[in-house]
Amino acid sequence: MNLRQLGEDRLIEKFVSQLPKGQGVIAGAGDDCAVMRISGKDNLLLLKTDCVIEGVHFLKKAPPAAVGWKAMMRPLSDFAAMSGLPQFALITLIVPPTTKVSWTSNLYRGLHQAAAEFDVSIVGGETSATNGPATISVSVAGVVEGNRWTARSGGKTDDELFVTGRLGGSAKGGHLRFRARIEESRWLTEHFPIHSMMDLSDGLGADLPRLARASNLSFEIEENTLPRNRGCTIQQAINDGEDYELLFSISPKRSKSLAREWPKRFPNLPLTRIGRFTPKSKFRNQTWKGYVHFQ
Amino acid sequence: MNLRQLGEDRLIEKFVSQLPKGQGVIAGAGDDCAVMRISGKDNLLLLKTDCVIEGVHFLKKAPPAAVGWKAMMRPLSDFAAMSGLPQFALITLIVPPTTKVSWTSNLYRGLHQAAAEFDVSIVGGETSATNGPATISVSVAGVVEGNRWTARSGGKTDDELFVTGRLGGSAKGGHLRFRARIEESRWLTEHFPIHSMMDLSDGLGADLPRLARASNLSFEIEENTLPRNRGCTIQQAINDGEDYELLFSISPKRSKSLAREWPKRFPNLPLTRIGRFTPKSKFRNQTWKGYVHFQ
Repeated sequence: MNLRQLGEDRLIEKFVSQLPKGQGVIAGAGDDCAVMRISGKDNLLLLKTDCVIEGVHFLKKAPPAAVGWKAMMRPLSDFAAMSGLPQFALITLIVPPTTKVSWTSNLYRGLHQAAAEFDVSIVGGETSATNGPATISVSVAGVVEGNRWTARSGGKTDDELFVTGRLGGSAKGGHLRFRARIEESRWLTEHFPIHSMMDLSDGLGADLPRLARASNLSFEIEENTLPRNRGCTIQQAINDGEDYELLFSISPKRSKSLAREWPKRFPNLPLTRIGRFTPKSKFRNQTWKGYVHFQ
Repeated sequence: MNLRQLGEDRLIEKFVSQLPKGQGVIAGAGDDCAVMRISGKDNLLLLKTDCVIEGVHFLKKAPPAAVGWKAMMRPLSDFAAMSGLPQFALITLIVPPTTKVSWTSNLYRGLHQAAAEFDVSIVGGETSATNGPATISVSVAGVVEGNRWTARSGGKTDDELFVTGRLGGSAKGGHLRFRARIEESRWLTEHFPIHSMMDLSDGLGADLPRLARASNLSFEIEENTLPRNRGCTIQQAINDGEDYELLFSISPKRSKSLAREWPKRFPNLPLTRIGRFTPKSKFRNQTWKGYVHFQ
């Protein structure tokens, strides 16, 4: 059976309306808007939207559950970048009418599994037909304590730069299996003053210059120290993209303590010092290129 | 110049990052998530996402500013349906790399104009390339007082059914020019107990059965009373869709007072009683069909 035969109302009923209501959800999918109770009066609201497109972010032959997982984890990774707690998600599915219902079922299974990892409630969304490539857009709302959110712009001169995990080679499959670094990010801001942070989606070579620019700084990287996935060159670690690891800066006064405490809490995930922020240089560092859309 | 030549970073800078920060916006576009202060501790959070696709919701030749206006007004119309106050919007733009920058500029102009009508801040979004039709997805967050939000499911037997404005014929251009009925909806819930409400996007013939089903009721309509746009037949008023008018139910005890007060506040917008809710019938009313996706 395909989606044209199923019809939109039944599709929404099948995949969205029957979801259990999560904590704080007063009205989920099926009404005009989703309605939620906001937790914590001193919290700030966080919003993020992100999409994956067939042929750009996943191949037609990719397992649909993995595509759903990735579509949800991408915006959740941005919550990690802010040290935020994601709570509610909306899903927009734009697919050809000939799409098989089984493909869609598996896609939603992946979306739900990824959301459940962090207690995120899927509270609505919509479906629409297209004659173009399948597109899944996920919007997420959540909260962060006013004294814990980490902007890109807070970096200071001499801050040391760290990345979690290993970089490069995600096209081999890692880009469909990654897990947003929310627990790591929450732990970091609970125990250390993190000056600036972001998640690596377009590759260190594209994203680090963005972090430095937002903080009005330049940077020095010790390329030999970059933590690489097996079989990856330094160039691949810099340019491949889709690592979804955290990149952050912290005062050199706190970096030794961080390096000591991290492995006790996250013994299976390396944390690597890769360089430092420097005063802004007149000469832009243009030698690095990550993945750039439209180019 | 087209978007491939401009590049994504400059695109975002050009259209989003330079926006003035609206009230409550702490960090808008340019960081990983948007960060906002939530207003009112007894308010509920509302979320809605909606998209428009070239060839489905607008024609390639449509003026891009009108497409942007429509893309923003559609989710805002869902806020009207809930009697909510929209506050923050995220925009996802998925277009071919050959799209002209001028088309995109005008699209954003329409998005901004529509958002400004209701003091909505555009706080972020993303762009992605596609080889398919242009797609604009808008996600909106806002609030509603806990005692004022209007679900679809609150209808009661004998409630009288009302619609704002006139129905039918939106394909002639109305679908690109409508204004979300937020002021009207806020006035209604300020002064009257509205039992159930929704906005008409797929046509009265598809949407009224949804409202009745959500309230576990059936309905009777006096077709001759339907307020029609000029040149429209009754069938067109029922089936055309994209009216973006409010459909709501109210106790018959309050309907006379409503009919008396409405024209004093909204002299230029008709409000019409079109029928009533009845106890649920065993026989589904299947004779009406509005616009149904995938069919």
